[in-house]
Amino acid sequence: MILTVTLNAALDITYRVPRLRPHGTHRVTEVVERPGGKGLNVARVLASLGHRAVVTGFVGGGTGDALRRLLAESGQVTDALVPVAGATRRTVSVVDAASGDTTQLNEPGPQVTVAEWDAFTDRYTALLRDASAVALCGSLPPGLPVGSYAQLVREAHAARVPVLLDTSGEPLRRGIAARPDLVKPNAEELAGLTGSTEPMRAARDTRRRGAHAVAASLGPDGMLLVTSEGVWRAAPPRRLSGNPTGAGDSAVAGLLSGLVEGLPWPERLARAVALSAATVRAVAAGEFDRTTYEELLPRVTVTAQQAAA
Amino acid sequence: MILTVTLNAALDITYRVPRLRPHGTHRVTEVVERPGGKGLNVARVLASLGHRAVVTGFVGGGTGDALRRLLAESGQVTDALVPVAGATRRTVSVVDAASGDTTQLNEPGPQVTVAEWDAFTDRYTALLRDASAVALCGSLPPGLPVGSYAQLVREAHAARVPVLLDTSGEPLRRGIAARPDLVKPNAEELAGLTGSTEPMRAARDTRRRGAHAVAASLGPDGMLLVTSEGVWRAAPPRRLSGNPTGAGDSAVAGLLSGLVEGLPWPERLARAVALSAATVRAVAAGEFDRTTYEELLPRVTVTAQQAAA
Repeated sequence: MILTVTLNAALDITYRVPRLRPHGTHRVTEVVERPGGKGLNVARVLASLGHRAVVTGFVGGGTGDALRRLLAESGQVTDALVPVAGATRRTVSVVDAASGDTTQLNEPGPQVTVAEWDAFTDRYTALLRDASAVALCGSLPPGLPVGSYAQLVREAHAARVPVLLDTSGEPLRRGIAARPDLVKPNAEELAGLTGSTEPMRAARDTRRRGAHAVAASLGPDGMLLVTSEGVWRAAPPRRLSGNPTGAGDSAVAGLLSGLVEGLPWPERLARAVALSAATVRAVAAGEFDRTTYEELLPRVTVTAQQAAA
Repeated sequence: MILTVTLNAALDITYRVPRLRPHGTHRVTEVVERPGGKGLNVARVLASLGHRAVVTGFVGGGTGDALRRLLAESGQVTDALVPVAGATRRTVSVVDAASGDTTQLNEPGPQVTVAEWDAFTDRYTALLRDASAVALCGSLPPGLPVGSYAQLVREAHAARVPVLLDTSGEPLRRGIAARPDLVKPNAEELAGLTGSTEPMRAARDTRRRGAHAVAASLGPDGMLLVTSEGVWRAAPPRRLSGNPTGAGDSAVAGLLSGLVEGLPWPERLARAVALSAATVRAVAAGEFDRTTYEELLPRVTVTAQQAAA
């Protein structure tokens, strides 16, 4: 199975309003709830690709109960979340029906205690035994030290399980120093990490800092992959517009599934780019459109760049 | 005891954000949850005034569980809510810390079935036996006919329990035709009902339509009371600025407690105006500030107007 870790899972709530007016009162015309957090999105896409996906991380409170119920109803992924006393955060997306734009409100998440972190790491270590790969995804809830992902990377190494890290800020910086097999930053995260706005330079710098491979997402232009075996750039056949929510998570699922299936790097990259584009084009935010995926996959262009760094 | 009915109870969630930017992504810095809906607010104020308050209406889902837990923790009012299959709605208030302004997002509420409505009316009829007064408060959840409040008014009459109606739109119009003892519209609701923007004329028209007495709230200018015994106007000693959330609910509690205590109309009105102003001045939205209330109560001016209509 493939394990995904979402330390700050969320109950994603989408509100549709006719038009968002700051300081006004709005009747919400449509309410949609779904289990959220990057690792949960990755797991759903992995399941759609035919992989067994297990999700862990923290869950608590009434919002956590709602998340688990939705997860069980969908039946796609295995729930190995660890209970905490605090409540799972909500994220509220307010979609303005007039413009189609979205305003996002993200709760911080539960305070996690040292005892809860210990319970989680025990569970994580046990789950690694059966994992063919693990993805560590998203922000840290309050109370967890910035080195938490670095610790989880080291434990994956000890268990000889390939580990992908997808986070930002100081947890990303510290996690990279623990030498993950792959990181998937976007251009903004790369710039924050390295100070360089030039993706190739920034990705190479990120490898020097510890990441074995760097898959940098370049938004609608595709992805840049820098590894010890080579450097590739992949682009969809055309720039696709739509809702980018979850596109990065689909890319992670593409990379991870390709790794587990033993595909060569260029094929993993093509899959990541096609899944990402098919997510942007999907009707529901965070889902991918299978027809678009199957149409795009053979048409993604992957080009080798200069020799490996 | 005093009974309050909240057919569309809510889990009120308040988010504080540094600055609300439409179409932006916001980290919520503070999350506060409380049981919401007009009747629940009225009951809390009644309890603070020393009355035993019982709340009924519908409750369901994980949000309903959260509401009931918060209600039980506060220990102020007795929970006689009736379970439904649908989930209790959320209301989200987004407070912009920079401006202090609030943006409100109100979910529609659960679909209520005919069987659930029947279960509720059985419970309501039983509760009326011990009630010295009843307040019917707020919007109707989806699925209930606009004549629902009219039915509840008639059942209160049958049980010889004085009934106050505080709603808006067509449910108010239909409820008034069932001859409630008192309605508490604001100027906007009065105008919607009667077509007149002149409060005295509109209040008299509302009596002709069926309400025995009309307490019209005039915002910071106080209230106008039109009854068969006389007409009074009451104003706070000064215009008070602050958060008007819950001010109308506090006025309902003032009117209802005064009725049950057998106070003359002018004293009920003074209490309603002082409680309402003390709610506007409170730090927490929807609470009233007791010191302000006690300071204002003897200083509210109540003046008799021309002879009763």
